[in-house]
Amino acid sequence: MIRIAIDVMGGDFGPDVAIPGAAKALERHNDVTFLLYGQKSKCDPILAQYPALREKSVFHDCEVSVSMDEKPSQALRRGRYVSSMWRAIEAVKLGEADVAVSAGNTGALMAMAKFCLRTMARVERPAIAGIWPTLKGESIVLDVGATIGADSQQLLDFALMGGAMARALFDIDRPTVGLLNVGVEEVKGQEEVREAGRLIREADLGTIDYRGFVEGDDIGKGTVDVVVTEGFTGNIALKAAEGTARQITTLLREAISRSFFAKIGYILAKSAFDVLREKMDPRKVNGGVFLGLNGIVIKSHGGTDAIGFASAVDVGYDMVHNGLTAKIENDLKIYHARRLPPPAPEALVADEE
Amino acid sequence: MIRIAIDVMGGDFGPDVAIPGAAKALERHNDVTFLLYGQKSKCDPILAQYPALREKSVFHDCEVSVSMDEKPSQALRRGRYVSSMWRAIEAVKLGEADVAVSAGNTGALMAMAKFCLRTMARVERPAIAGIWPTLKGESIVLDVGATIGADSQQLLDFALMGGAMARALFDIDRPTVGLLNVGVEEVKGQEEVREAGRLIREADLGTIDYRGFVEGDDIGKGTVDVVVTEGFTGNIALKAAEGTARQITTLLREAISRSFFAKIGYILAKSAFDVLREKMDPRKVNGGVFLGLNGIVIKSHGGTDAIGFASAVDVGYDMVHNGLTAKIENDLKIYHARRLPPPAPEALVADEE
Repeated sequence: MIRIAIDVMGGDFGPDVAIPGAAKALERHNDVTFLLYGQKSKCDPILAQYPALREKSVFHDCEVSVSMDEKPSQALRRGRYVSSMWRAIEAVKLGEADVAVSAGNTGALMAMAKFCLRTMARVERPAIAGIWPTLKGESIVLDVGATIGADSQQLLDFALMGGAMARALFDIDRPTVGLLNVGVEEVKGQEEVREAGRLIREADLGTIDYRGFVEGDDIGKGTVDVVVTEGFTGNIALKAAEGTARQITTLLREAISRSFFAKIGYILAKSAFDVLREKMDPRKVNGGVFLGLNGIVIKSHGGTDAIGFASAVDVGYDMVHNGLTAKIENDLKIYHARRLPPPAPEALVADEE
Repeated sequence: MIRIAIDVMGGDFGPDVAIPGAAKALERHNDVTFLLYGQKSKCDPILAQYPALREKSVFHDCEVSVSMDEKPSQALRRGRYVSSMWRAIEAVKLGEADVAVSAGNTGALMAMAKFCLRTMARVERPAIAGIWPTLKGESIVLDVGATIGADSQQLLDFALMGGAMARALFDIDRPTVGLLNVGVEEVKGQEEVREAGRLIREADLGTIDYRGFVEGDDIGKGTVDVVVTEGFTGNIALKAAEGTARQITTLLREAISRSFFAKIGYILAKSAFDVLREKMDPRKVNGGVFLGLNGIVIKSHGGTDAIGFASAVDVGYDMVHNGLTAKIENDLKIYHARRLPPPAPEALVADEE
């Protein structure tokens, strides 16, 4: 049984989306149970419409909900211990749930997850990994906004954790990994990125196949399974790409609606448009995975619908089912065991004499 | 007369694209002359096919061409004073041309342009401004890769120069400007970006309408006329968006080709697709503008065709025609005149007594 804790109040639509979303995910998995955290009075009438879900879940009444525009510090102050968001995460910490899913605001969710679950012993900073539709299928991009800036060691951690996630999600032995940069020459780019490239190459991680630098347009091509970058650039790249996809859809819809023949053509070509929509559907790749914490937390898009929320639950299910945390811990252990220990202070002194 | 210097050897296709491209641009402007820099033996046969262009241009034979994969330092060493790239830029410096256009490699072109033209007196670092198709029309995004990293003062310079370019390109009085960031809250984002936001607000530049932070998806929406960011993020955002556009086109083409009805539908809806293609055509928005140098240099995409190259020439024409350099210099002058001079050292000493 996989136990999924859900912050039912998170997101723009709260229980109106989270409950039908969880119900939809339940249809696909018969080995899950849910822990639902939310305001009972608001959730009960909705839950009543999904008897299958109600049967497989335990409801926990929480009076406090974190709002979408609350600042992380404020959310922590007001919502720690008591909010639906906190308690869903805490269920993971207490071992009552295997994963927590929330469509709540990213900053607050990350702040609470860090505070409650703590960062893994050998990881300096957590990352949010996004799933990106590509020409070849899907790739993982991280960090898409957990923290601003990352030094070379942190980028190496991201490469390692992203690799573990790719193995859990795509079922491949040794995922290819690239570092996002502005040029493919070794001389170009940020100092930390160049240094990270050197570190990753030298670490010679058996769990990933490091392919060097990749550029912004390599993400959509699916050049590598895992694209590593720091959170500021990753977030902007993700949103710029989402914006472009929306822009093209809007322009095409407008253009089609302007001509009678185009409308007929659209109907005839609908199968093709459906394939495209299916492949680029942001709801299908919904679910940012928090990596590097002592427990799995999945962030769903705040504005998604039940289909999208169900995808986020699916991602959580896959991560647990395929042992994400154990994979990351294992990879970290191997990496750190192989690193040369730093020289003892006495050795340094002896050397100077 | 607007005099346009062209590095005919630049780009993946050299004179095969640059010469027909220039000829195409000439059809649209009857007040231009060209200075063509290239290898005479290679260019002569092509130029012979464009008598109108040949009549309006002076050809300068250059034995050295900078290759697309040459490192900036190497290109400078080998190509300074003698290459077609250098000499096109130098024509601007010597006052023989009003603008230089090249499809050559970006790093080499920027290195030569900086070396030859020098950075403007009050600008610390140049930027490359790209033109981005949006839902509302077009926006300017800078820096898309001139330099990695930018401090807050440099970001302010970019805002000012981007504003001047928007006035020259879009014919609007007071363009809206946004700073690219990962959130709209004032507390989020990189230190330099937050500081730049404060500086721009305080500077209260009359020439731009500063709208605060924008996110990655605001670029495609056309939320502001000018999007300001540092070169690493700008370059990756640009390429990620280009990659997404290409990805959608490819997926749609594949999907259509798989079904007979979809093919018929495509033919009927062709007008709509043409509108979309027209609006998103990367060739139409070809032309990165180097800002902050003592002279205008336009970088064309290396892999573009004659239509794309002609667009880059058009951008150069517009920039000269609408007095880009004078606008930037004027805005800088106003800004610096309004800045409070730093207190004299004596004043500080007196204050402490």
